[in-house]
Parts: sequence; structure tokens; C-alpha cells
Amino acid sequence: MNHYDVIVIGCGAGGYNTAIRASQLGFAVACVERASNAGGAGIRTGCIPSRLLLHTSEIYDLASKGEHAALGIGGAPTLNLAQMMVYKTATVEKMSKNIHRLLRKQGVTLIHGDARLAAAGQVVVEKAGGAQQTLSGAAIVIATGSEPAPLPFAAFDHKRILDSADALSLDRVPRRLAIIGAGAVGVELGSIWRRLGSRVTLIERRERICHWLDRDVTAALERSLRRRGIDIRASSDVVGLDTRADGVSIRLRGAASGGLATVDADMVLVAIGRRPATAGLNLASVGMRAGPDGALPRQGPLAGALGIWAVGDAAAGPMLMSKAEEEAIACAERIAGLPGFVDYAAIPYVLYTSPEVATIGKTEDELRQAGAAYRVGYCPLAAGAHAALGGGAGGFVKLVVDSRTNLIAGAHLIGPGAADLISQVAIAMEASMICEDFARICHPYPVRSEALRQAAMAAGGWMMHA
Amino acid sequence: MNHYDVIVIGCGAGGYNTAIRASQLGFAVACVERASNAGGAGIRTGCIPSRLLLHTSEIYDLASKGEHAALGIGGAPTLNLAQMMVYKTATVEKMSKNIHRLLRKQGVTLIHGDARLAAAGQVVVEKAGGAQQTLSGAAIVIATGSEPAPLPFAAFDHKRILDSADALSLDRVPRRLAIIGAGAVGVELGSIWRRLGSRVTLIERRERICHWLDRDVTAALERSLRRRGIDIRASSDVVGLDTRADGVSIRLRGAASGGLATVDADMVLVAIGRRPATAGLNLASVGMRAGPDGALPRQGPLAGALGIWAVGDAAAGPMLMSKAEEEAIACAERIAGLPGFVDYAAIPYVLYTSPEVATIGKTEDELRQAGAAYRVGYCPLAAGAHAALGGGAGGFVKLVVDSRTNLIAGAHLIGPGAADLISQVAIAMEASMICEDFARICHPYPVRSEALRQAAMAAGGWMMHA
Repeated sequence: MNHYDVIVIGCGAGGYNTAIRASQLGFAVACVERASNAGGAGIRTGCIPSRLLLHTSEIYDLASKGEHAALGIGGAPTLNLAQMMVYKTATVEKMSKNIHRLLRKQGVTLIHGDARLAAAGQVVVEKAGGAQQTLSGAAIVIATGSEPAPLPFAAFDHKRILDSADALSLDRVPRRLAIIGAGAVGVELGSIWRRLGSRVTLIERRERICHWLDRDVTAALERSLRRRGIDIRASSDVVGLDTRADGVSIRLRGAASGGLATVDADMVLVAIGRRPATAGLNLASVGMRAGPDGALPRQGPLAGALGIWAVGDAAAGPMLMSKAEEEAIACAERIAGLPGFVDYAAIPYVLYTSPEVATIGKTEDELRQAGAAYRVGYCPLAAGAHAALGGGAGGFVKLVVDSRTNLIAGAHLIGPGAADLISQVAIAMEASMICEDFARICHPYPVRSEALRQAAMAAGGWMMHA
Repeated sequence: MNHYDVIVIGCGAGGYNTAIRASQLGFAVACVERASNAGGAGIRTGCIPSRLLLHTSEIYDLASKGEHAALGIGGAPTLNLAQMMVYKTATVEKMSKNIHRLLRKQGVTLIHGDARLAAAGQVVVEKAGGAQQTLSGAAIVIATGSEPAPLPFAAFDHKRILDSADALSLDRVPRRLAIIGAGAVGVELGSIWRRLGSRVTLIERRERICHWLDRDVTAALERSLRRRGIDIRASSDVVGLDTRADGVSIRLRGAASGGLATVDADMVLVAIGRRPATAGLNLASVGMRAGPDGALPRQGPLAGALGIWAVGDAAAGPMLMSKAEEEAIACAERIAGLPGFVDYAAIPYVLYTSPEVATIGKTEDELRQAGAAYRVGYCPLAAGAHAALGGGAGGFVKLVVDSRTNLIAGAHLIGPGAADLISQVAIAMEASMICEDFARICHPYPVRSEALRQAAMAAGGWMMHA
């Protein structure tokens, strides 16, 4: 069969979710994937392997730092990195297979090969061995994801100069690991290797790490990373990189001071960002073109010109699996003529560092710049009973409340469990729940969520437990 | 000073929260506590020490069962029970001191002694050394909590026949531990000692453990406890108990079969329930009396006759710290003439077993008995990406949705993190969010909360990930 109602190019979070939802809505759907396994960067080389190694490295770290001894559990743990990687790879394979299973269950046809547009409604797939298949479809969804961006003056060699996929598959713990770029990938992968024993240097050209986050969150995260022994070099431009047989030298220039410095390391992870993987799609054949950064435009919430749609990392906006999933659902529903809507203001963002960071909505900086009046409800996690279970030192919940409406404008959390807590704020925001009502929610005891309630009380001037 | 606006008897969750909120509202408040430290059973002998030992014993258990080895972390852990108890005691002390600090900060006067009512508006406090103090107050709040109920034919001897406080302070791991009563205390404490090495037998007179929970949750919990090696004897009445120097023998009769059996153990934990601690309050002096179970009535949401109020375990209803806290806030606000309201239908309930159990609202049984039409949205946790991090096998989320209104009527969760997830349902219920909207919430990836979304999708017939 060569004709489908919907052809999805790419089988990552944007692609498989579009395919599943479109199939649920009654369409005949094909999904074309270049890699041998489905799942995209999120499952295969990014989010999931990172999350798995953050999990295992944290267990190792807590046990080896003696934190367990204080709880009455003795014994020095040993690290078996090969086994840790076996666990990671097996889990990734299992999750990828699960995507294949879901697609089969929903009746989606998965086609392996390299897809490019040929004309309106036409996709050509180059298959292994050189065979070609031409597909026609009423709607074509571009969900080709993204790939790590290299330094302009040093290509990835995957030995000394690593991308994030490389850095999630090392076969030994590097003695010294340098990381260029202190965004999500930089701080997560830096945390993993620091816990497993590397000396980690985190290099960032801006004056603070993860610059888009709330300033108090950034400060707490920096303190925590430094306390764990990560060397943070902020306001530092990388001006040169030399590889040797046994390592790399990175030349830095202070962004303000202009002073020069050198960081030596066994290897360097380049984590300066990702770029949409839209080259090679032959966009010109349908009269489209990508933006200067490679991203496709979203016209309205989602591009619909010529029956061609774009979702996930290939489309403009934050590169998050959750954003891709939302766009996928909305895209399939709009193709079906249903209302389909992505509330970009209520997409949560998470760093699985230790402590975890989670954020949603507006920061104080953004509200201040917009001239909006707001109140802050702040509660340290240490105030909650759950903090007694450890790990919450220095963590907090900060709610930002619009003074005019009393609605929650944003929430900024750092501490254990933040990733699951942030959804509570997402629900309250989507339900247009005023902060006073949020402060009235009854939580079990003791749970981490109590801190959200106390922060909401604080925004109303009646915090009870701190 | 002997006159206060509000006198609170008891400084547990019901008491200290009433005192703090009343003080915030401008009242002069005294709180009378019989024990040397504030916090009540929840912090000092119940919920918190149990939660702490569940936490530490789970770390020990996971490491010693080889689950960490599969993650690449080797080494056999050793148990230092004395240190584990030091950690527990120190943490409880710290939390109790924190209550003292909060009361001081809010300007509440803490008076140590044994309080009884003397007349309307009068409380007599018997202090250490025999001194008496008579307090007068416009409002008196009874927050005396509860205490473990003994077997009718065998008093606690605190050596072989234990109450829950004893069982949270053992100085060695019992070889064989019998537990009478498979409610919250029974399953939590049974889990702790099983993980630390005891052979545990859980005896329950009803046909299933934690009988008030959703039947699928109970079944999953029973399977999990059995798999961990806990012997569950359901439908078994305890008809006799003999203590010897080296242990106890418990005689059972099958509730249906009538067959007799004996369970031998080193010690037995009696966990058949708790009773309100209202004896000795001299209720007759103000013309009140407790119910046959010792509980004080709630008139409307909270008793207000004669300016005497009751909150927490001393008042009728579920014995939960969260319920006590809600009643405390509402009580203080009503004393101040404000609206004060407890939504008993939206109080979550949690078991910190492994896997955790959390529940809110109505069960299927309750809806069926009420003749209400409902739909179920079921999602196994194994479907979520987060399950790859372990611990979720057999867990699930079950949403019960009112077919007439499409509102969420209840939620029943079993699996890691359930205690923090249940608050998401509490928020949706309080916001009267329909299930379809709940299915539209965007969650970070990968987090446990995704299972809630998938369950909501399932209730609407469009679950995408299972």
C-alpha cells in the first residue's frame, strides 16, 4: 500500500504520538523512521538514557557518600559501569520495542527508510539496499526531531569531542570531563559523571547556568552542583579547542574580563544546544523553507500549509518531549477537523539533576519585564515533614501569583520529586484555580506536595508551617 | 496569664494546627500538652517514625535483594539497627522541636500538663509535681488524639504484646513477628520488619486486608506483600493468645471454615485499630459525652456546642493527620466567624507500603451500592516511561468517573510515588475539572504522573500509551 491518509516522517515523541492519535481518529497512517528502532532521540539517545543514568548514579552516590550509613545501612558500594550500561541499553531497547508494539496495536504502518518530500502530498522513502518507495498522503507530518549542534570550529569526533549520545555510552569513567554549555544536557550529564567519580568542569558563556530558569532556582542549583564538586566556569567563551592523543585543552576567554584560561580534560562534551533535523527533507519541493536555525514555522499553533504539518523539535519552540506530545495530539485532531490546541504557557519543564528542578509558566523576570504586578509565595522544602526523609536541603517551592487575578502565573521548584509536583501546578493553572483555592487543597501526610500548599498559603500571607 | 481566647487541649496535628491558625487570626491561644514534646502520635509514635523506617528499610531491602546489582551497583549492605533507630529518634525529636518553634513564632503559649474540663469555658491543668492551673477561654478545642486499642483478652505488655509505638522501637529484628490486624498500621509495620529480615504473619479477621480500599488495589497489595514473603492469614479470628518467656502463641479460628490454627511468634503487634483519647476529659462537666467508641460528635462539620470544639482523631471520622489538619484550620476559622469547611469527600488516604497506595473519593463498590453510573479509566504503571526506573511492576492508576457529570468521583493508585500523585486528583476534584480536561494536562517526561493522564484518556476511550 502506498496511499495513506496521514504520513508521519520520524518516529520520535512527535511522530509516534501523532501516528497513534491519528490512527485512533480513524485515519490510515504510515510512519517513516530512518533509524532501525522507533523512539527518537528522547527514548534512544537523550532524555531516557540520561534519566536512567541519573537514577543509577544517584543510588551509587548516596550509598558511597555515607548517607546510607547515617540511616543504619553500612557497606561500601562498588561501581560496575559495564553492567550499568547494559541496564541502560536493555531498558532503552525495551522502551523502543514498546513503541513498535503500540504502533502495531493502533494499526500504524511503520516504514523504515529515509524520507524526503517530493511534491505536495508525496513522500519518497529511500530504503536500505537502495530501493525507493513513493508514498502519497492527504496530510504529511514532519516530526524529524533534532540533533546535537557542534562547535563551529571543532566537529564531533565521538572520541575526545563528544555529543550527548556519546557521553551517555562511555565505557569508562573519565578522570576529567569538560562540558561546554550548562543547559539541561550539560547539568544532567555533568551530574551523572560527577557522581560516578569524574572531575567535571562546566563551561557556560552566560553569567549563569540554565539562564531561562528562575534566578533563585539557578542559584540553588549552582550551589548544589558546586557542593557536589562540579567546577562551574560561567561567563566564559570557548575560543579554542585542541585535541591530543590523551585529552583535550579548551581555551576560554572571560566574557567580561577578557582574561584567558585553559581547561584540560580527558574528553569534552559539547552541549551547546540542538538543531532541528530538517536538512535533506527537500522542503523546496513543496515551497517551504526552514528558518535560519533549521526550525519549521508554526502557523497558528501548528503549520497547516499545503497539508504539511510540523511537530516536536523540528517545529519552533522548546525542545521537549512533552511539547512534542502536545503538538502531536493537537496536530492529529486538527487533521481530523477537531479543535486541537497547545497551551504553550502551561508546558512544564524539568531537569532531572539532584536536586530536581521543575518549572512552569512565567518567571519573576518575565513578569517584571511585562510590567505585571505579582506576589511570591515561597516555602523552603525543609519546612515540610517529608524533608526528614532526606535530600531536600536547600530546596524550595516558589509560586508566582498574578496580583490582579490571584491566578498562579508560574511555579519554580527545586528539590526531590519536583518533576512530579509540577503537574499539580499545571492542573491548577489549566483549571484557572485561584491561589487561595490551591492553598485549601488537602494533601496526605507526610508528602512533598505539602510544600506547594504552604507556598500558596505564603502567597496569601498565612503560611502555617514555616 | 490564665485567660485565653482559645484553649487547645492536645498538641498533635489537630492541636498545633488549630493553635497556629487561631493565632494567625489574632487570638490569644494556649495549647496544653501532656507529653514532654509536641507533635502527638503522628509525629512522635505513629505516622512519622513509621514513614522513616519504611524509607530506610526499603533502601536496605533494595540493596540487599540484588536489585542494585542489576543497575551496576555492587556490594552487600549491612544492617545497623541501632543506628537506624538513632536516625529515627533524632529525626522525630527534630520535628517535634520544629513544632515548638512554630508555636513560639506564632505566639502560642504551650502549657505542659494534663488538662480536663471543669465547666463551660474552664480548663484545669494538672502539672508535674502536683500543681494545678485553671485556665479560662472563650473557645475550647479538644484535640486529644487517639491511642492503640488493645485486644479485649490481652493487654499490651510492651514486650511480647506490642502496640505500634513499641513495634517502631525494637532493639533487635524479631525472628518471627505476628501482626493482628491488616489495616494501615499492620501492613506498614509488617513491611518494615519483613524487609529487615523478620518472618511476618499478618492476621486479619476480614476476608481481605485494608478492606476499605478498592478491591483491585487490595488484590495488588496482597500479591506484592506475599511476593515479599509476608504470610497473610485473612478471614481469621483471633480467639486466644498465650505468652511464654520466649514468645507468643496466637490461636486462630477460620471465620468461614471454623477451622483452628496456631501462629507462633517471638512477639505480636496488636494493630486492630485506635480509639479516641477522650477519657479523663471530664466531659460531663460541660454536659457532653463521647460516643460508644470514645469519639466526640461533629455537629455540622465541627462541634460548636458551648464553645467547645473537637478536631482530629478525638472527633468522629478517619484517623488521619490530613483530616486533623483540615479540621484544625476550619475550626480556627469558624471560631473567628469566618467560613470554615472540610470537604470530607476529598481527603486523600495513603499507605506508605512498597508499593505505595493512595486513594481519594469513592470506590467502585461505593458507587455500585449507591446505584451511580460510572466509568473506569485504568492504566498500568508499566505503560509509562517512568516505570523503566523500577519499582512499578503490578502498579496501576484507576480513575472512577461519574458517567452523568464526567467528573472524577475517585482515584485508586498503587505503585511508587502514589502518595504525591494523589494530590493531582484532589486538585482536579476540588476544581470540578471534568475527566476530559484532566486527560489534556501536559506533564513533563518521563514522570509518574503521565499514568494519571493515560488513565483519564482511558476513561474517555482514547488511551494512547497502553
